[in-house]
Amino acid sequence: MTSTPAAAAASWLPDEEVSGAHRALREWVSGHRDLAAAMRLLGWDQQTKLPPKGQPGRARTMGAFRSILHERATSPELERLIAAVEDVDPDGPEARVTRRAFDQASKFPVEHVRARVEAASAGYVAWEQARTADDFATFQPHLERLLDLSRRDADYLGYEAEPYDALHDLYEEGSRAADIEPMFESLREPINRLLDLQPEPDTAVLERSWHVAGQERFGREVVARMGFDFAAGRLDETVHPFCAGVGAFDTRLTTRYDEHWLPCSLFGTIHEAGHGIYDQSFDRLGLPATLADAPGLGMHESQSRGFENVIGRSRPFWEHWFPRLCEVFPDATAGVDLDAFVRQVNTARRSFIRVEADELSYNLHLAVRFELERALVNGDLAVRDLPEAWNAGFEKWFGMHPPSDREGVLQDVHWSGGSLGYFPTYTLGNVYAAQFTEVARRDVPQWDELLRSGSYEPILAWFDEHVYRHGQAFTGRQLVERITGGPVDVGPLLRYLDDRFGRQP
Amino acid sequence: MTSTPAAAAASWLPDEEVSGAHRALREWVSGHRDLAAAMRLLGWDQQTKLPPKGQPGRARTMGAFRSILHERATSPELERLIAAVEDVDPDGPEARVTRRAFDQASKFPVEHVRARVEAASAGYVAWEQARTADDFATFQPHLERLLDLSRRDADYLGYEAEPYDALHDLYEEGSRAADIEPMFESLREPINRLLDLQPEPDTAVLERSWHVAGQERFGREVVARMGFDFAAGRLDETVHPFCAGVGAFDTRLTTRYDEHWLPCSLFGTIHEAGHGIYDQSFDRLGLPATLADAPGLGMHESQSRGFENVIGRSRPFWEHWFPRLCEVFPDATAGVDLDAFVRQVNTARRSFIRVEADELSYNLHLAVRFELERALVNGDLAVRDLPEAWNAGFEKWFGMHPPSDREGVLQDVHWSGGSLGYFPTYTLGNVYAAQFTEVARRDVPQWDELLRSGSYEPILAWFDEHVYRHGQAFTGRQLVERITGGPVDVGPLLRYLDDRFGRQP
Repeated sequence: MTSTPAAAAASWLPDEEVSGAHRALREWVSGHRDLAAAMRLLGWDQQTKLPPKGQPGRARTMGAFRSILHERATSPELERLIAAVEDVDPDGPEARVTRRAFDQASKFPVEHVRARVEAASAGYVAWEQARTADDFATFQPHLERLLDLSRRDADYLGYEAEPYDALHDLYEEGSRAADIEPMFESLREPINRLLDLQPEPDTAVLERSWHVAGQERFGREVVARMGFDFAAGRLDETVHPFCAGVGAFDTRLTTRYDEHWLPCSLFGTIHEAGHGIYDQSFDRLGLPATLADAPGLGMHESQSRGFENVIGRSRPFWEHWFPRLCEVFPDATAGVDLDAFVRQVNTARRSFIRVEADELSYNLHLAVRFELERALVNGDLAVRDLPEAWNAGFEKWFGMHPPSDREGVLQDVHWSGGSLGYFPTYTLGNVYAAQFTEVARRDVPQWDELLRSGSYEPILAWFDEHVYRHGQAFTGRQLVERITGGPVDVGPLLRYLDDRFGRQP
Repeated sequence: MTSTPAAAAASWLPDEEVSGAHRALREWVSGHRDLAAAMRLLGWDQQTKLPPKGQPGRARTMGAFRSILHERATSPELERLIAAVEDVDPDGPEARVTRRAFDQASKFPVEHVRARVEAASAGYVAWEQARTADDFATFQPHLERLLDLSRRDADYLGYEAEPYDALHDLYEEGSRAADIEPMFESLREPINRLLDLQPEPDTAVLERSWHVAGQERFGREVVARMGFDFAAGRLDETVHPFCAGVGAFDTRLTTRYDEHWLPCSLFGTIHEAGHGIYDQSFDRLGLPATLADAPGLGMHESQSRGFENVIGRSRPFWEHWFPRLCEVFPDATAGVDLDAFVRQVNTARRSFIRVEADELSYNLHLAVRFELERALVNGDLAVRDLPEAWNAGFEKWFGMHPPSDREGVLQDVHWSGGSLGYFPTYTLGNVYAAQFTEVARRDVPQWDELLRSGSYEPILAWFDEHVYRHGQAFTGRQLVERITGGPVDVGPLLRYLDDRFGRQP
């Protein structure tokens, strides 16, 4: 079941078989992760449970706590532990990963880190209000502050070609804007051509009345069967869905329910569960704390988008689940057959909102954002000009003009939290997912049959073997090379999209 | 509207009118409280949201975080700030409160503090499982560990008469077992006499089907009207209801729903809202961080039990709310009149479960626990003998034998979290509430009329003036003296119980 002999090699050894230096470093990182769990809980709670008047206090708490974590993550004690591992195993993944994190953290003064957390906390609140009121002006000073801090991040971190690379590298090690730009360019024409081919959209079934309690029940059932462990996780409601790895055996999905738009929670929950299954694998497989994480966000998105789209919108998948959907929603599914349902959940069209977009046009949404945030970070665009630039970018990639800032520049949470350089990782995730799926379908030839019977264990086993068990021992690009034997390549994604969207009548 | 001239005196001054030393201390305590909010969130989340497999990791997180807080709470920096305030205002409340907290914390080695948190976390999990399985043996080693740590607490803290006093003083400053014992003794005969007078219990209406969604809606409506601010708080479900002051403007109630026992959530929610209204008052009234807390748990219970029982089970209160209850629950209230409903929610009888007990027999439940925990802490009772001692104590105070440990020694959460010395504060709360109510009804003669119209502002204003605005500037006993002009006295509670339960036919 392995694709290359190299993929079978262990990327780490258990505690009993490593040096005392490794054990000491693992123990320190493990303790640090336990402490950092409090920070991640504060963030999860802020977005799901915190009462409105509690926001300013929460921002102070998170700022103060981030300072404490930063102090520890840059402590001489940690550096000594890393150096000891470097002495015995300089080329091992544990030395590489911890050294990179230590060096990155050490470049930021603690006041800067604290300021960033506080600005992100305040920015999130301001963004929520601005989005509700469709009023960019109230968000503008927050985004200016966040951009200023991000540009200082880039200066602290250093870069070769452009400031944007410093930030993007935080999310996807070794990836550069100069690689991303042609990737989007090579998607532009084929995707627009496929979009032009699509029939008149009909999503009437998905807009029927789907009672929220049923959506929640069905969503939980699906993702539990796919492999998300609810004894080590949760599902809650929020405005902007996310998955939070809070602590050991504690991974939390969030979703959003819309009674008259089934895909919102259905595919949103599966998407976050893809992240969650990945995140839960590190505890489940007993990875050392030093490696117990994904190598980057692109790899994380390969799982979420893989579960959501490659698997979750495929016909074989719905051959299993559609009868159960009809049981939970007898009224909403009345008179609908499997083919019609699968066609509707694969409806593709140009639209304004990224999080509701189909998987075909989705990449164009990211292209718009990549160009804008690259320009912002590199100093080629001012925040005050952003709404106009957004609309111009949208015209360029979609040929459409957003009707409002709420359906334009204000729709996404990311920048409000100071996350610039993040967006291209979604498309990298699509690229990785398509590359992995080509190999996995060769290794697991009964793939479609498994989906038809609702059995995901052999598929998960493939990901355990080739992806999950390595944690962050390899970068995303290295994992792609190990698995496919070649570099990051947009070809499989184009073939996959062509296969799914090119056959429409 | 003030009962004594002294009560009108300010117990603290705003930032602009105090010394620089005061301002510096306030700022430090404020920062510390922001950080401690993370710890309180970890606790709230553990009891309401944490997935089961996440418990061990959470215990490690809380242990690590408690160490950090402890280190700060005992830092030389803090001591210098306190000493500076003592120099300019040695008899002021801010010096007294912060010095007491500093001295107490400084008596504990940090490893002890961490061990206590970890034992409490593990103890809570073990207790939940033991209670479900009705199996004291699996909880016993945890309780032995927690008792051992508590007895060491007492040694670290020091005491005059007996070890129990050291622990009880943590919850109620200046209160001693030697005062508590006669308090319970003087309640024993009158309460048992009143219980003997009660008619055959009839709670058939309360056991009808009360849909949970309606219970939640009605409960939220009631406590919001009573003064709980949902923009600065929440209400969630849990196994053992509590109120958590998480952070600034963030106070969280929890409750439990039982479709066939309305009082469980109804009075449970009002009870926790009593705590919550008190807790929210400190932010609302802008108290300095040094004083922004209740002086002890007895005072806190005076509010929760006052709102739940003195107000929430009174006839005038239900003259306002019963029609609304009938709207929300037309089926469950069919054929029921106000008198019957008020009679049923004031049903008193001997029973096994404290949290479901009526306010009359409630004090006997505490008497049982007080005697047992006093014996445990003073070394007169071993944990292995506790179930038998529980049953003997129950025989002594109630003349009944619990049918199982689940309905006996395993029913309460407190000891599982290492809280010994806590239980008598519930009865102190009843005593304080009755004393305050006698004065407040004189000061606010339209009391019943206000309840009949669902207007609680003048009552809250009385508590603002006499209790809330002082924070912890005075101890519970000092507040009682300021408000009533006399000492803690069981007389008003006996008169109140006699009035409410002595008139039954």
